Amino acid sequence: MKEYRQASRESHPGDSVVHVGPVPVGAGPIAMMVGPCAVESREQLWATARAVRDAGFPILRGGAYKPRTSPYSFQGMHEEGLELLDEVRRELGLSVITEVMSESDVDKVAAHADVLQIGARSMHSQRLLEAIADAGKPVLLKRGFHATIAEWLLAAEYVLRRGNERVMLCERGIRSFDDEFTRNVLDLAAVQVAKRETHLPVIVDPSQGTGRADLVIPMSRAAIAAGADGLLVETHPNPARALSDSAQQIPTSELGRLRDEVQLMARAMGRTLADPREALLV
Amino acid sequence: MKEYRQASRESHPGDSVVHVGPVPVGAGPIAMMVGPCAVESREQLWATARAVRDAGFPILRGGAYKPRTSPYSFQGMHEEGLELLDEVRRELGLSVITEVMSESDVDKVAAHADVLQIGARSMHSQRLLEAIADAGKPVLLKRGFHATIAEWLLAAEYVLRRGNERVMLCERGIRSFDDEFTRNVLDLAAVQVAKRETHLPVIVDPSQGTGRADLVIPMSRAAIAAGADGLLVETHPNPARALSDSAQQIPTSELGRLRDEVQLMARAMGRTLADPREALLV
Amino acid sequence: MKEYRQASRESHPGDSVVHVGPVPVGAGPIAMMVGPCAVESREQLWATARAVRDAGFPILRGGAYKPRTSPYSFQGMHEEGLELLDEVRRELGLSVITEVMSESDVDKVAAHADVLQIGARSMHSQRLLEAIADAGKPVLLKRGFHATIAEWLLAAEYVLRRGNERVMLCERGIRSFDDEFTRNVLDLAAVQVAKRETHLPVIVDPSQGTGRADLVIPMSRAAIAAGADGLLVETHPNPARALSDSAQQIPTSELGRLRDEVQLMARAMGRTLADPREALLV
Amino acid sequence: MKEYRQASRESHPGDSVVHVGPVPVGAGPIAMMVGPCAVESREQLWATARAVRDAGFPILRGGAYKPRTSPYSFQGMHEEGLELLDEVRRELGLSVITEVMSESDVDKVAAHADVLQIGARSMHSQRLLEAIADAGKPVLLKRGFHATIAEWLLAAEYVLRRGNERVMLCERGIRSFDDEFTRNVLDLAAVQVAKRETHLPVIVDPSQGTGRADLVIPMSRAAIAAGADGLLVETHPNPARALSDSAQQIPTSELGRLRDEVQLMARAMGRTLADPREALLV
Repeated sequence: MKEYRQASRESHPGDSVVHVGPVPVGAGPIAMMVGPCAVESREQLWATARAVRDAGFPILRGGAYKPRTSPYSFQGMHEEGLELLDEVRRELGLSVITEVMSESDVDKVAAHADVLQIGARSMHSQRLLEAIADAGKPVLLKRGFHATIAEWLLAAEYVLRRGNERVMLCERGIRSFDDEFTRNVLDLAAVQVAKRETHLPVIVDPSQGTGRADLVIPMSRAAIAAGADGLLVETHPNPARALSDSAQQIPTSELGRLRDEVQLMARAMGRTLADPREALLV
Repeated sequence: MKEYRQASRESHPGDSVVHVGPVPVGAGPIAMMVGPCAVESREQLWATARAVRDAGFPILRGGAYKPRTSPYSFQGMHEEGLELLDEVRRELGLSVITEVMSESDVDKVAAHADVLQIGARSMHSQRLLEAIADAGKPVLLKRGFHATIAEWLLAAEYVLRRGNERVMLCERGIRSFDDEFTRNVLDLAAVQVAKRETHLPVIVDPSQGTGRADLVIPMSRAAIAAGADGLLVETHPNPARALSDSAQQIPTSELGRLRDEVQLMARAMGRTLADPREALLV
Repeated sequence: MKEYRQASRESHPGDSVVHVGPVPVGAGPIAMMVGPCAVESREQLWATARAVRDAGFPILRGGAYKPRTSPYSFQGMHEEGLELLDEVRRELGLSVITEVMSESDVDKVAAHADVLQIGARSMHSQRLLEAIADAGKPVLLKRGFHATIAEWLLAAEYVLRRGNERVMLCERGIRSFDDEFTRNVLDLAAVQVAKRETHLPVIVDPSQGTGRADLVIPMSRAAIAAGADGLLVETHPNPARALSDSAQQIPTSELGRLRDEVQLMARAMGRTLADPREALLV
Repeated sequence: MKEYRQASRESHPGDSVVHVGPVPVGAGPIAMMVGPCAVESREQLWATARAVRDAGFPILRGGAYKPRTSPYSFQGMHEEGLELLDEVRRELGLSVITEVMSESDVDKVAAHADVLQIGARSMHSQRLLEAIADAGKPVLLKRGFHATIAEWLLAAEYVLRRGNERVMLCERGIRSFDDEFTRNVLDLAAVQVAKRETHLPVIVDPSQGTGRADLVIPMSRAAIAAGADGLLVETHPNPARALSDSAQQIPTSELGRLRDEVQLMARAMGRTLADPREALLV
């Protein structure tokens, strides 16, 4: 089943580093990608983005296109959301990561974002993967909640073989027989496996991975202890009012605590926390 | 979670019937959709299609675009495959069902096929679902191997709410903790659930559902006994030489036995077997 | 992984037949094992048992010891329940199958029952399996809801190698990621696999397998079409008042319909329905 | 489903501490339970136990009774194994934890061990749980590889309500759809959930949880970062020659590194490492 070639560590013994703005993901510093589940309004996005920047996190996440189980749920702000992300990106100096759901949106998203995210539900959509690869931007590939590790690494191969080497993997929880307390099961051993099998940076999403805001900080710690190169964390100024996934977004008021806990764990692992403000000083 | 509206039986108490050529799927006769996993060559397709027609099966299945776990596996004949399907369709009077993997292929596939199939790996690709819905052709929506029944029915809702009411559901096995003897677990109770929750026809795919040619006939029987409205079966003139899924394709030489067993079971259920030749006689 | 030896069809090419009273399970006739989830009272058991006998079903099921997730749920009537089962067995001429949960109960249960059932939660309790095997009575071994087919067949091997060859296998549904509509996923392909890998009779439990009374009859049909040698079905005179599993017990008033549907399907499969009254006439 | 009462944190807001010899499990220090998968011989046990003691780990694990999928696999040394454990325990001053598989072994095991372990395959064997509870010794309750968190906590309730309050929970990985790279999926969020729902100490088993020796140290770190109170780790002087689970036992030569990594992580969490030698000095 080990049919991945370009993804394989055998083909590329060193760790790949994917540069996202000033942040070298995979090189040592823990890369924090933090922001709302969905872009909901200028006010919400600006409030969140300022909190993200003030906490020293360099990359803003936020969905403009939202894959939803029901067609009657909020589907995102689409182009308006992209423009808001771009506005914040320019004015606050943050890098932006956002999901692409459709081949026909690739160019639009690539014009506004620094990293194109392939969501868990799209991991098996090979034609979409190829279209995203061809945009030439860094790609964050989430593991399908139903995907084996081998399938995930082969999905990365679909991107790499188009000549786009800037691929980051993201573990975000798999579906199990038990969703009473956590929405998914965060598979932290998969972080180690992915780092042994491939040379690609591995990010962990403790928000999707647990579905619970109160587990985000403990699972962030555990992810770093397991060897993750970065975290993708959902936050909202007022989670109870969020239009999607309100249970798993931490309030922006907790970002300082998140930063402190992550920093402590990064140090125990001999790593630092990527901070663009420090980068500017160098 | 019961957010499906147009799919819901409450909104539409009678059984919906989707006409595929002369075959009224969902009306009583068991609809047989039989053919190769992938179109591999003119010779292979013609040999298979003749055997399908000779067995009295009215609908030919066959993949021109194949979603494969590895980018290094055979990916299908693409447009050439579509043209071969169309050739056989015109000359043998069979209806054709084939999968659409990409938004950019929808028009091409719709020009050549009678039914557009949404594969298990695409079930959550909502933008693809909408693009396929808009082609206005009958749609067969496979359940994701990882999808809950509710998610499957909500995926149908994504199609229905675009105004395309010609949706058939297809159970094709789900992923479990055990794949030593069967590739997937065929969830036949889901057939009953889907028929109780919705008004849509429900098809079963015992080939993907088990991954084993020797289980196709027993599971075809069981599917009909469970209330399925039709079957999607993979066959090949020489399965050992198939370019994909060789373990699960039955040889075309067994189509007669398949027909006899299905007919026996259909009769026990008070149903018949849809046969275009009989339709011509009426 | 094929470490089963005495269970293996290679070691015993013909079908094994396990005699339960006058019923030859595995020989052709479909064996019906029908009764309440739990023995709750003399009145409930007698009412159920009479309905079972009147429908022509030869084997009465009923739990005296109930494995329950919570220690605060009804745990069964224990010895009093065994005595009630024995009373009914003697007076109505039914055979009785009941579960053994503890090594220390084996002798007591064996003194009152014709078949000792190993429940799904006990399938991996190897010491219990051995103690049950040593009682020398027919054994019905349920597949764990979490057990691979290979593990199930190896559990049978634990019984067989003690010298007890009267083992029946029972598929009763496995746990999946989706329990919104059905409690378990009934794995009917496992029936075929078990019959190909081993020489043992295979029973299906559509009550536990779906958790829904309204799916019991359709799944009973599907099980027989899939090749099952018998069915284990839960029934209660008044399911709404049952002390356990009320959603999955069919009312005794539906046993006639169950019998008719099973008979129809048995005939389509070239089989009959085991009926002790017919046995008496021979 | 929250039917646990005595296990519930609402009923007992503080953290319970279970004393195992001099080690207060749950109180702060990380409790290390280290030893071979199975006791195989006096030489193997003594070599392992000395290495465990020399690394400063206070509790020796080791199976005398081994639940094995196949009846033809090594089943443990039984009473001879218990006696060897007891010998080592007395002479090296280690506490001993070992599994009980059968009600009829409870007294024998309780006479030789400090902690009675309930294995993952026995978690649902309620009568065995009660018999073990009644021995009055500390109990380590492994989560079934198939058990929901609620079922696990209710299994603890079966022990607690017998009056035995010395229960430790142990997460050891659950079964998923993917076992290509890791045997189970270690569910570290379950550690947090168990600590929030209950007052009981929570141990993690990274050996069973991954099935891979090379993942034991990283997952030990992650477990502590997730809030675990201790670790259960398999080690062997020569893993390649182990009679069971050879792939997941770390060589005793790595115990020093395990200790250093665990200590580093314990400090980052504001905890220490339980060391009986320090206890003696106080």
